[in-house]
Amino acid sequence: MRAAAFLGPHHIEVADRPDPTVAAPTDAVVRVVLGCVCGSDLWYYRGESPHALGPIGHEFIGVVEQVGPEVRGIGTGDLVIAPLTYSDGTCVHCQAGWTSNCANGGSFGNHGIDGGQGESVRVPFADGTLVRVPGSGHSDETMGSLLTLSDVMCTGHHAAMSAGVKPGSVVAVVGDGAVGLCAIIAACRLGAARIIALSRNPARQQLARSFGATDIVAERGEAAIEAIKEMTDGIGVDAAVECVGTGESMATAFAIARIGSIVGAVGAPHGVEVPIDTVIFRNIGLRGGVAPVRRYIPELLDDVVEGRINPGRVFDFETDLDGIGEAYAAMDERRAIKSLLRIGAKEV
Amino acid sequence: MRAAAFLGPHHIEVADRPDPTVAAPTDAVVRVVLGCVCGSDLWYYRGESPHALGPIGHEFIGVVEQVGPEVRGIGTGDLVIAPLTYSDGTCVHCQAGWTSNCANGGSFGNHGIDGGQGESVRVPFADGTLVRVPGSGHSDETMGSLLTLSDVMCTGHHAAMSAGVKPGSVVAVVGDGAVGLCAIIAACRLGAARIIALSRNPARQQLARSFGATDIVAERGEAAIEAIKEMTDGIGVDAAVECVGTGESMATAFAIARIGSIVGAVGAPHGVEVPIDTVIFRNIGLRGGVAPVRRYIPELLDDVVEGRINPGRVFDFETDLDGIGEAYAAMDERRAIKSLLRIGAKEV
Repeated sequence: MRAAAFLGPHHIEVADRPDPTVAAPTDAVVRVVLGCVCGSDLWYYRGESPHALGPIGHEFIGVVEQVGPEVRGIGTGDLVIAPLTYSDGTCVHCQAGWTSNCANGGSFGNHGIDGGQGESVRVPFADGTLVRVPGSGHSDETMGSLLTLSDVMCTGHHAAMSAGVKPGSVVAVVGDGAVGLCAIIAACRLGAARIIALSRNPARQQLARSFGATDIVAERGEAAIEAIKEMTDGIGVDAAVECVGTGESMATAFAIARIGSIVGAVGAPHGVEVPIDTVIFRNIGLRGGVAPVRRYIPELLDDVVEGRINPGRVFDFETDLDGIGEAYAAMDERRAIKSLLRIGAKEV
Repeated sequence: MRAAAFLGPHHIEVADRPDPTVAAPTDAVVRVVLGCVCGSDLWYYRGESPHALGPIGHEFIGVVEQVGPEVRGIGTGDLVIAPLTYSDGTCVHCQAGWTSNCANGGSFGNHGIDGGQGESVRVPFADGTLVRVPGSGHSDETMGSLLTLSDVMCTGHHAAMSAGVKPGSVVAVVGDGAVGLCAIIAACRLGAARIIALSRNPARQQLARSFGATDIVAERGEAAIEAIKEMTDGIGVDAAVECVGTGESMATAFAIARIGSIVGAVGAPHGVEVPIDTVIFRNIGLRGGVAPVRRYIPELLDDVVEGRINPGRVFDFETDLDGIGEAYAAMDERRAIKSLLRIGAKEV
């Protein structure tokens, strides 16, 4: 099969790789229909984080081609969503709902495990990992939204859940990348009364509004903090959602969070310092992390299938596997919010 | 009146100070019966934190001597508990339960406000601040426990609440000071199934056990982490409670917290760095801070009055106001867990 391979910073190519096969009785082999590039992929693409050379990509949906003899809930021909990590579903962490921290799990597209930016993937622990999509003949739009359940929509949901968004909340979302935009969908879905999006990009502002943002703050840093304080009578927001992972974004989130609230953070941290004095003297907590995607997919799936949420609209660049270099470059240069890869036919 | 005054590091003396009077219609004047020294007082005592010269002490119980014309719920002769801060009870933060972050509040024993280490205190916002103790003729033991509701017991409770301790939880308490010991009482009261106390002091270990600790870990740092990991099958604890405020104690708390749990932290931070990679990649949250004491007193008061909890046992050194220097020195030199000051008669 053909799959994207990381060969070093700014150097990604499509290469031949052995066809995946069922190696363990709990494995499935999935033919990838759609994959995409994650904002977190840019860290190693830019040489700012390490990554093993070889397969990449941890977001994909596809059709099951083979299953091992012990796989029960997934069958050949099923359209499935793969979470960013595989998980056994039975360990103490999975049982507690922290599937992305499975004691026996790992990431797709890392440490030699097939990635989602390729034609086919061996999925360990198929029952604990994959989620079957109900129905058939889904539109291209729905397929794109289903793909976001692999990571970005569930990650936005995790940010909102971690920050404790509930009906009536005043929320601010720091970060207008795909995760931040999905966090707006999540906050809206959880009943937030007011959603302030921090964005200075007109296209992203528009998408933010269509996803449920009620206010846009185009300022950054101190000016953004002042603007949000003014909008909230000096109190700050009930839930600050941090979807970037830089020192400035974290500082902004803590500064706009009201007394007693929680910063929900999902950005991969780079140069982040948690303001411990704010934690202690303003009673502002910090929760979040790598989203337990496998736990969240089932609760978000119906809303996607029924079209009540359309997170697939974050994809504003499309190509095929051969365009993988351009898919990364478009995001790296901020020409695209998120790049979709059409890899295989959606028909069984 | 006579009151302790901070004159510089390691220099505390009793000095004359004007008798407090009702200055605002919502004030009360409280004659102090019992005061004490807080672990956090040691930071300025040692010159490690700034503190205004003048009155000190933020923990006291006493008898109301005068009330302003707008005070409704508190009357002359009432035995009352003062939380570490005064609070109006009506601002947006108080209404949300964050009384120690009152928009119009402040600390006792700082910025010129009378301290609890003195004979009398003007209490702003008496209705929003003071809590009347039911009954009369309380024993010395009960009086000491009532005094802990001023700060230390409520702070231990806040640590346990922040860490999400619930029935059946496996809890570890980092810190065997008065707050850590009270956190053990709180965890036990909240139904924890197992409480691991980190302490290498035999007297404190014994008190910890009598407060509900089921296990003692005498090791520190890496060795303590290893011991607790082993005790929990490598998983870590459901709730890690940080009651010190140093870099090492915070690092220990994060290292022993299980995936998806929350570190509850109440120690005044000195040189603390939050391990953001642990937050994000192990989904371990951080909550806590200055306890909303005024909110907690009513829910803990009955347990103290009925003798179901006896947090006053953390006082293992007693003196009167003239012994204030020795009260600080005993704690500074770790000869005492917590020093009680018998300041005035408990009779009305």
